[in-house]
Amino acid sequence: MIGRLNHVAIAVPDLEAAAAQYRDTLGAKVGAPQDEPAHGVTVIFIELPNTKVELLYPLGENSPIKGFLDKNPSGGIHHICYEVEDILAARDQLRAAGARVLGDGEPKIGAHGKPVLFLHPKDFTGTLVELEQV
Amino acid sequence: MIGRLNHVAIAVPDLEAAAAQYRDTLGAKVGAPQDEPAHGVTVIFIELPNTKVELLYPLGENSPIKGFLDKNPSGGIHHICYEVEDILAARDQLRAAGARVLGDGEPKIGAHGKPVLFLHPKDFTGTLVELEQV
Repeated sequence: MIGRLNHVAIAVPDLEAAAAQYRDTLGAKVGAPQDEPAHGVTVIFIELPNTKVELLYPLGENSPIKGFLDKNPSGGIHHICYEVEDILAARDQLRAAGARVLGDGEPKIGAHGKPVLFLHPKDFTGTLVELEQV
Repeated sequence: MIGRLNHVAIAVPDLEAAAAQYRDTLGAKVGAPQDEPAHGVTVIFIELPNTKVELLYPLGENSPIKGFLDKNPSGGIHHICYEVEDILAARDQLRAAGARVLGDGEPKIGAHGKPVLFLHPKDFTGTLVELEQV
């Protein structure tokens, strides 16, 4: 079912500092900040040759990553995103296998303009998993 | 400096269950367990089309992931690994930029038979970063 690793998302307490570190210290290709109000985050994409790293910073009062940063003030890896061909088929198959889909189970449009869903971390070895239809 | 994302490592409390989940529920290509006594872990590689996920399980009394699993009993993302062309040059450049290299700073041979180093999570937005020379 899952295909490529689309991205690894890292929540950071200082977006400028993290971007500078990836650009200047690690020598990676770092994009410009993009506000994603529907997701409550500002995102910076780091393009690696085979996948992406996404730096996430809270946007607005109800950002879904605020709690994570409260618990992990230095930041940390927030989720991983796997690509699927058909997100509704993937959702139904995962539910039938007993996995919990977060929210109302209807895909939202993610930061890349594609439908996404999140799976419950307790069902996936403590890892928040995003599925993105490509 | 950094190239491809070589792998994302997930520490798991039950290696069999995690492997079955990736194989059967997520439909990924899951390898056989490999003991890595020098690193204190048993590893299962999951081959995705563009990178790997590594499931880590403690091996021996002094496993470096035991503390992580004590803190995160459901498991969780333990580290990410970026490829570099020259690990000693990368190490020296990172140290010059103020980043801390873990251990004695000398590369060890990692689970793929290549030289690896780990960078201090506090210097990289709370993320344990492994560098692997390819």
